[in-house]
Amino acid sequence: MKIARVEWRGQTTWVEVDGDSIFALVGDRFGGPRRGSALGPLAEARLLAPVEPANKVVGLLGNYGSKGERAGPGIFLKPSSAVIADGDEIKRPPTVASINFEPELGVVIGRRAKDVPVQSALEHVMGFTIVNDVTSFDARKEDGPASTRYKSYDTFCPMGPWIVTGIDAGAVGIRSRLNGTVKQDSSTSGLAFNIGEAVAWVSSVMTLEPGDVISTGTPPGPGAMSPGDVIECEIDGIGVLTNRVVG
Amino acid sequence: MKIARVEWRGQTTWVEVDGDSIFALVGDRFGGPRRGSALGPLAEARLLAPVEPANKVVGLLGNYGSKGERAGPGIFLKPSSAVIADGDEIKRPPTVASINFEPELGVVIGRRAKDVPVQSALEHVMGFTIVNDVTSFDARKEDGPASTRYKSYDTFCPMGPWIVTGIDAGAVGIRSRLNGTVKQDSSTSGLAFNIGEAVAWVSSVMTLEPGDVISTGTPPGPGAMSPGDVIECEIDGIGVLTNRVVG
Repeated sequence: MKIARVEWRGQTTWVEVDGDSIFALVGDRFGGPRRGSALGPLAEARLLAPVEPANKVVGLLGNYGSKGERAGPGIFLKPSSAVIADGDEIKRPPTVASINFEPELGVVIGRRAKDVPVQSALEHVMGFTIVNDVTSFDARKEDGPASTRYKSYDTFCPMGPWIVTGIDAGAVGIRSRLNGTVKQDSSTSGLAFNIGEAVAWVSSVMTLEPGDVISTGTPPGPGAMSPGDVIECEIDGIGVLTNRVVG
Repeated sequence: MKIARVEWRGQTTWVEVDGDSIFALVGDRFGGPRRGSALGPLAEARLLAPVEPANKVVGLLGNYGSKGERAGPGIFLKPSSAVIADGDEIKRPPTVASINFEPELGVVIGRRAKDVPVQSALEHVMGFTIVNDVTSFDARKEDGPASTRYKSYDTFCPMGPWIVTGIDAGAVGIRSRLNGTVKQDSSTSGLAFNIGEAVAWVSSVMTLEPGDVISTGTPPGPGAMSPGDVIECEIDGIGVLTNRVVG
């Protein structure tokens, strides 16, 4: 099931997306929602980012490749003010020389999670979305690594286009295309800490609430993007998150 | 004016605190609220942290002492799940060997701020509170500096006891006491980037919304605390934030 947050006839609402049509969502969005009445064509709705302002966006660091000796991946937070939707513009800040794209699998929490074991962690997951964890390594170099300014600017967290439920996202293709050219082409099977391990680890630090998102890290090969570029982040079974860069 | 968020007769509400009494708050909390009818004794209300779940808590790094060559201090975010109130317990996580206290001046945003100049930055400030930016340097050592896990555990962000408006917090005493013994005794005049500069800097990165809090950094000398300890963070003109450590 594809669940989207949209602006529809002037209202912000959650809907089911099926092909080119949207449907009302009946029941709790986090507790097995069902399809309601047909609303109309998807093209007449504006896709919004699939998070509410109160939701946390937790990023993971160094989560493709080897675990090494680590108990879990590094953790940081992206501010709600950075979140934009599919189709919105990524703004390169005037004081920042370069920005990078980082396509990531976003894990959307459906049920409160605190200190959950790996074995049952997936029971706390509602579904999956795509996050572009936009990053400025110039800013990181200026501040040093302890400052997360480099991941915090407005528009630095494109997310969407929707949440897909009922899929296994543990071994699906993940790629980025810059102006149509493939830049990364990998699989979520390369995650150092897999989805269940990531949820359990983050929940050992902080209480996760329904709607919070864990962005699980980017595969090797993220690169720079410039004003005028179009960046697409794709995950098989979820869709394509497309944003244009302006500056 | 002292503005507090409290639980009063089973309801979460914002009130004015005057001595031992609380009063209803009339008008917009961010737009010059006035005193309403008397509610009763402060002792019958339970103080809550002076933020709503959707508010961002932005921490600053290395912000006492010299600016050096920096354009601004380092920035990180504390999750809303870490926020607790005056009187609540700080829980040392079982997997973390040591935790530190860090008393900080909390600047509460009253009016949306994006790219505001230093000269008018204080017009976007509603008032001031106290933040204890609880930190585990063990966790930082394990993850490396780029991970903010060390500042993100549940209960790692005591805040309160209230917001004080109409004061100049630019040169006031700030101190910590562990079990009654003074550990830090400094002044906010030691801020490398002062309040206006901090607000302007953070607003150059991210849009600040009413209710967001910038925690401006701790003066030299923060130290460790252990289960059983009582930590007090005091700022002159604001009050004392008191929390007990459990583990």
